[in-house]
Amino acid sequence: MITINENFLELQDSYLFSTIAQKVQAFQEKYPDKKIIKLGIGDVTRPIVPAVLEAMHKAVDELGKEETFRGYGLEQGYEFLREKIAQYDYAKRGVTIQLDEIFVSDGAKCDCGNIGDILGLDNVVAITDPVYPVYLDTNVMAGRSGTYDAISGKYRKMIYLPATAENHFIPDFPKKVPDMIYLCFPNNPTGTTLSKEILKKWVDYARKNHALILFDSAYEAYISEDNVPHTIYEIEGAKEVAIEFRSFSKTAGFTGLRCAYTVVPKELKGYTKDGKEIALNGLWNRRHGTKFNGVSYPVQRAAEAVYSAEGQKQIKENIAYYMNNACLIREGLQSAGYTVYGGINAPYIWLKVPNGVTSWEFFDILLEKANVVGTPGVGFGPSGEGYFRLTSFGTKENTMEAMQRIKNMK
Amino acid sequence: MITINENFLELQDSYLFSTIAQKVQAFQEKYPDKKIIKLGIGDVTRPIVPAVLEAMHKAVDELGKEETFRGYGLEQGYEFLREKIAQYDYAKRGVTIQLDEIFVSDGAKCDCGNIGDILGLDNVVAITDPVYPVYLDTNVMAGRSGTYDAISGKYRKMIYLPATAENHFIPDFPKKVPDMIYLCFPNNPTGTTLSKEILKKWVDYARKNHALILFDSAYEAYISEDNVPHTIYEIEGAKEVAIEFRSFSKTAGFTGLRCAYTVVPKELKGYTKDGKEIALNGLWNRRHGTKFNGVSYPVQRAAEAVYSAEGQKQIKENIAYYMNNACLIREGLQSAGYTVYGGINAPYIWLKVPNGVTSWEFFDILLEKANVVGTPGVGFGPSGEGYFRLTSFGTKENTMEAMQRIKNMK
Repeated sequence: MITINENFLELQDSYLFSTIAQKVQAFQEKYPDKKIIKLGIGDVTRPIVPAVLEAMHKAVDELGKEETFRGYGLEQGYEFLREKIAQYDYAKRGVTIQLDEIFVSDGAKCDCGNIGDILGLDNVVAITDPVYPVYLDTNVMAGRSGTYDAISGKYRKMIYLPATAENHFIPDFPKKVPDMIYLCFPNNPTGTTLSKEILKKWVDYARKNHALILFDSAYEAYISEDNVPHTIYEIEGAKEVAIEFRSFSKTAGFTGLRCAYTVVPKELKGYTKDGKEIALNGLWNRRHGTKFNGVSYPVQRAAEAVYSAEGQKQIKENIAYYMNNACLIREGLQSAGYTVYGGINAPYIWLKVPNGVTSWEFFDILLEKANVVGTPGVGFGPSGEGYFRLTSFGTKENTMEAMQRIKNMK
Repeated sequence: MITINENFLELQDSYLFSTIAQKVQAFQEKYPDKKIIKLGIGDVTRPIVPAVLEAMHKAVDELGKEETFRGYGLEQGYEFLREKIAQYDYAKRGVTIQLDEIFVSDGAKCDCGNIGDILGLDNVVAITDPVYPVYLDTNVMAGRSGTYDAISGKYRKMIYLPATAENHFIPDFPKKVPDMIYLCFPNNPTGTTLSKEILKKWVDYARKNHALILFDSAYEAYISEDNVPHTIYEIEGAKEVAIEFRSFSKTAGFTGLRCAYTVVPKELKGYTKDGKEIALNGLWNRRHGTKFNGVSYPVQRAAEAVYSAEGQKQIKENIAYYMNNACLIREGLQSAGYTVYGGINAPYIWLKVPNGVTSWEFFDILLEKANVVGTPGVGFGPSGEGYFRLTSFGTKENTMEAMQRIKNMK
């Protein structure tokens, strides 16, 4: 008799985005003349830049000729791309990463989920709260979460690390030591980040406790301030304790093209139950080669073009466009009297909702009075209650109009 | 302390293709003037057809314009592609498959491996022998295989279903009833397939025993004979017991472009340990949405173009080219006195090596005397010993020359 993985039955249905869609649709049907502005989306909107398009067209043409056709590539990714990654994302920042420590993939989301394949099921997992739901859900599927407690909104075996205004969005070390620690900085959803000094404390903590940091750096390209690490490997000793996930999705608008990569340093060790050290690089290499078959060739050429002089110039224009929106949102909200966080090193703005109002109530108020859509903070975890996320991925015009409406709302 | 998934330590290193590469390199260095012909590869060589290239170029251009830019798509795939799949691969053959039963992905290899995520770890797994190694290795990683027995070359908890000339490459039902049964037809590596009557017996067997058939149909496009099922769902009752994996890799040369799909019918149930029925479709949908982020948009447009009138005509020319090679190999080997199997409904030819010679010894003989490279059957499993695989993915000229050399060798 075929049995299922019963851990899946512990998953909670995520009604967040479907509930938002239903509320927006109901409002639009009631008021068909109202122009709704959506600042809730976490997807890019600017077109792919010309340097990348050109590289893709060229690669597509190569596949049409016998002399230049390519079939299966290395599962780990073409060296032409891994060389660019090693050079521009690491060597340029003083970090040495070998090509066989880089695994090109079709998405940081996939890698963040799949990495659990190589890790023991008895590991205790820590996530920040609020959090990107994939870290949690994939551990529920694997059976590391324990059962769900509806009263607290938390899984019983997970460690939640609150990140709120009270601790300046810098999670404290938990009472119980975790084995796996997911950190995403610059952070989704709060838009905040960590200084090098703070991140060093986490690296030291992981080294001391033989814990593994799963560092999601998908928003690295949005960092504007000094003293914010662009890679966790800028921190001394991080190669011994951290896997880093990077993506072209937000860096170069690849959400529909699909390319990312994961770095698993060779220094990084896991342990058998009887304490034997095993390099995680070899385990991930085997997993990647067995359960993955490489990223589409034209997409790898597209990613390579991101690193060209033209590509860099063009993607930075798009990032500047989004960050100008972020600035407009920050300033607009502040002048309307709101307390805001993020939006300086990340495309997300995290605002404190007015006292006495829940994040879902604020959603309704914003929709009804300003016809603006955002995302209630509680959708990202219990500690997200009292907060609200706006994103800078809309058009400049819509962003400005949304801010004007919110100001008038007061 | 971060622990690893110790099941990975049970994986056997696969030296098959690296050993082949080393032997070929050593031979080439010893005899630099010899022209080696490689008929061992399982990768396509014909260029992507014009209709597909045109669709990709168009999609790339769309991503470059604000009005037509697309970011995240549905993880399950764009409806434009799923509609074509439902219509051409199923409705045309009298099979009704709903769009939400189709999950577009970046590879059948990935799906064959990842499907285990939704299944219980206590399921007993059956694989044919010889076999495509991914079915085995991914179950070793998950912990379903038991430990490895070096003497038999088998894992202790796996059920091996020998497929040899003695049983006409039709595996017998095993003594112990499995819960998961991997079937790949047309088969890699033997190139043989099953009639509808035989496949019906397997479907009936699975229905009777509440087992799950994981049906890998990656070589469907190479079927030339009547009475060979193009999809397992042509068999009555198969929707209750089978997941089907399909790919554009061998159908349309997408090994480097990456597109495939998996069908999980809604009728298909798994069970909790206490016997409660759970639809596998919902579980896979959740897994796919959580640990995958959709196939690259231009690649989905490329796959869509495979179904156009021009696309169909063009890919069939490539398949005919490969199958003409298969015919040349079959006839060449037969006239040289070999017993051959496959090559009629599949791009693989499986030949019986001469008596008293192992499949690795035959590899050496073929390399030294004919300068032709193939794959020793034992590399695909213990029952592959005594056999040898040649593929039809080379050029016509090389294939003809290889056959001439093998004839002269006798």
